[in-house]
Amino acid sequence: MGTSRQIKLGAFIHGVGGHIAGWRHPLAQPDASIDLGFYTSQAQKAETGKFDFVFIADGLFINEKSIPHFLNRFEPLTILSALAAVTSRIGLVGTISTSYSEPFTVSRQLASLDHISGGRAGWNVVTSPLEGSALNYSKTVEEHPDHAKRYRIATEYLEVAKGLWDSWEDDAFVRDKESGVFFDPKKMHALNHKGEFFSVQGPLNIGRSRQGQPVIFQAGASEDGKSFAATWADAIFTGHLNLADAQAFYEDVKGRAAAAGRDPEKVLIMPGIAPIIGRTEEEAEQKYQELANLVSIQQALAYLGRYYDHHDFSVYDLDAPFPELGDIGQNSFRSTTERIKRDAEEGNLTLRQVALQETTPRPLFMGTPEKVANLAAEWFEERGADGFIVSASIPNALNDFVDQVVPILQVRGLYRTEYEADTLRGNLGIPVPVNRYAAKSDEALV
Amino acid sequence: MGTSRQIKLGAFIHGVGGHIAGWRHPLAQPDASIDLGFYTSQAQKAETGKFDFVFIADGLFINEKSIPHFLNRFEPLTILSALAAVTSRIGLVGTISTSYSEPFTVSRQLASLDHISGGRAGWNVVTSPLEGSALNYSKTVEEHPDHAKRYRIATEYLEVAKGLWDSWEDDAFVRDKESGVFFDPKKMHALNHKGEFFSVQGPLNIGRSRQGQPVIFQAGASEDGKSFAATWADAIFTGHLNLADAQAFYEDVKGRAAAAGRDPEKVLIMPGIAPIIGRTEEEAEQKYQELANLVSIQQALAYLGRYYDHHDFSVYDLDAPFPELGDIGQNSFRSTTERIKRDAEEGNLTLRQVALQETTPRPLFMGTPEKVANLAAEWFEERGADGFIVSASIPNALNDFVDQVVPILQVRGLYRTEYEADTLRGNLGIPVPVNRYAAKSDEALV
Repeated sequence: MGTSRQIKLGAFIHGVGGHIAGWRHPLAQPDASIDLGFYTSQAQKAETGKFDFVFIADGLFINEKSIPHFLNRFEPLTILSALAAVTSRIGLVGTISTSYSEPFTVSRQLASLDHISGGRAGWNVVTSPLEGSALNYSKTVEEHPDHAKRYRIATEYLEVAKGLWDSWEDDAFVRDKESGVFFDPKKMHALNHKGEFFSVQGPLNIGRSRQGQPVIFQAGASEDGKSFAATWADAIFTGHLNLADAQAFYEDVKGRAAAAGRDPEKVLIMPGIAPIIGRTEEEAEQKYQELANLVSIQQALAYLGRYYDHHDFSVYDLDAPFPELGDIGQNSFRSTTERIKRDAEEGNLTLRQVALQETTPRPLFMGTPEKVANLAAEWFEERGADGFIVSASIPNALNDFVDQVVPILQVRGLYRTEYEADTLRGNLGIPVPVNRYAAKSDEALV
Repeated sequence: MGTSRQIKLGAFIHGVGGHIAGWRHPLAQPDASIDLGFYTSQAQKAETGKFDFVFIADGLFINEKSIPHFLNRFEPLTILSALAAVTSRIGLVGTISTSYSEPFTVSRQLASLDHISGGRAGWNVVTSPLEGSALNYSKTVEEHPDHAKRYRIATEYLEVAKGLWDSWEDDAFVRDKESGVFFDPKKMHALNHKGEFFSVQGPLNIGRSRQGQPVIFQAGASEDGKSFAATWADAIFTGHLNLADAQAFYEDVKGRAAAAGRDPEKVLIMPGIAPIIGRTEEEAEQKYQELANLVSIQQALAYLGRYYDHHDFSVYDLDAPFPELGDIGQNSFRSTTERIKRDAEEGNLTLRQVALQETTPRPLFMGTPEKVANLAAEWFEERGADGFIVSASIPNALNDFVDQVVPILQVRGLYRTEYEADTLRGNLGIPVPVNRYAAKSDEALV
């Protein structure tokens, strides 16, 4: 095994997927977002590939414009608990918002998942950017907390959660049948938190798991988000269009973590990738085109129109060069519309081509298994990433990655051939946090 | 199969159990409350016995005086989701409070469990009687809502939950790959609820399950509780010391249901029982004494003292007759202390005997399998019960019931030999609620 740095992998499971029309693919299962069998097979496939974790995203508001997967999908904690029962080594990471939930309930449900899974739970902490969420939680949209306040809430929320998770020292439960002593009251601790947003007495009604506390994930890329991540996150889900951007983010966040007094090697940076893999470059290109063509041209034009003040693109010839639009789209999304114009001119693209390309951006991690493995290795070795969260935009993409890319990374010694541990922390190489109360006696021993 | 009325059965799974010292039993697994293996084996055993459902209780506050199982246990929705993945026919019923949660989140998690399990979810609606819960939810104890207000909140909460569960008509998700139509927007409905306690816009981001909506359980025995149950509950978890009391409750609640315009046969009354089963009466008695003796005499005296203004019983001779206490205990628990005095005199009991008996009340459903089956049949046929929720106060009690009592009930034609359905509603014989929006078009067709 050795102690050399190795690539970490997560599998982003999302039913019919993040792509607007992925469910129309001939191989897609259109009810996948509410099918336990689909989630089980994906999680078990990822476990076959020795992935560190599966990842479930979330949202708290929909309307008739939401993409198919968002409309009708499992809630993260419930589906992860079900997956805990049909997997044994892979981590189980779910997204939960700190803006519309109670820390006692969420800490407890995560701790319960952590016990159910034998120490494999992770929490992707989000603050709910979508204003509509307020409408489902007895608030007006105006009451949706602003960005800075959401991060203040999240910070206090994490303090409470981590405090509640330490309610019981690891050896608190004696369970001695002979003496009749079930627990040691000296090792049970009330939190007695009173802060700006929460007052929580504790203790939590569940003890620490085999990994101490669930692993903290975070995905915010704003200044507040990066600072929050550097302070709290064990792993960061990010996204970049090229290696240089990834490296800049990596260096930035690792620096912030070090400045916060943490070991930067224990804060993992994991960009999301949506690979399209073919036996040849041509096959990969064909798969990409097949996906892009699932979007109806009406959908694609409407999607494009969002950047241009809802301009009606259906009046133009689809197969003529991308139209000259004058001042349209110079307002809200100027950097995007400037880039689209540049891309269209440089590539001599038609309106149809632009619309389809914008709806289905060409993934960077695309090509033969060797090419995708080379890219992953490069990003990892050049410090743009500590690993990747693999999202399947087309059916079988996760299977392709496991069957074809993973073996190449294993041969190169960049990726495990067997799990090192049976907890999520153990596999990610992140230490078990010492219980805040036990720490005192440990320090005394030094 | 036939259409004759049959006994319904639930299995109350609670780790180290509701008995204060059950975890000390030689056969008890003292970490059962956080062991997935234990819960899985109990649920699968109940499924072998064709039980309608497993039942998980809950609480939101502990302190150092809480009984062992309460201190460190799974949260209901997570453990039920895990059990969904390792069972196929049995219902999954969990306790969730309406006083300290958000209807959008709870409706969604229950709907998710309902999809994960293929239509087997149930919700035991409680209003959290324990004032301490407020302390874990950023409220002062004074802010814990009083009894009447808790039921007003619960009523509005149920209105919201049932409204959200109808967000999508059953045929809303078209998923036609050819036309690209994922859903029919006319069959997606926002709730737009604005009430005294909640404002929830909707729609819920998950559709209806195979059983339409999760089954509603309720357990309150107060006037408010019985009215709430008669209005909302599909099944009622109750508890009685004798058949006459059970019959009175049964008649009362069925009458209230009829008065509320419901079919009383579709509102199931299910008393909880904690059977102790032996091959002979003597073996059952021996098992009872073994359980009673697990309570240390100190614990038993302290337990007894709670009824007597925390009177110190340790100053008396344990094996002398129950002491004369004068005015002590004439205050808060007068009916209980009067009964204890009467029982002690009539049975010529020592202090030790009284203390142990109060801590471990002798169960009514105790004796040979035939005796327990006869009692169950009598309560069922004499309309004291539509079924029972079986709780194991000693290890193997559920197994004994499944292996020894169930076959007798089956031979008598009082209990199923195979599941009638694969949803909880189907097995309980409770109709799938028609979607409130679809109902309009259905009515138009009549």
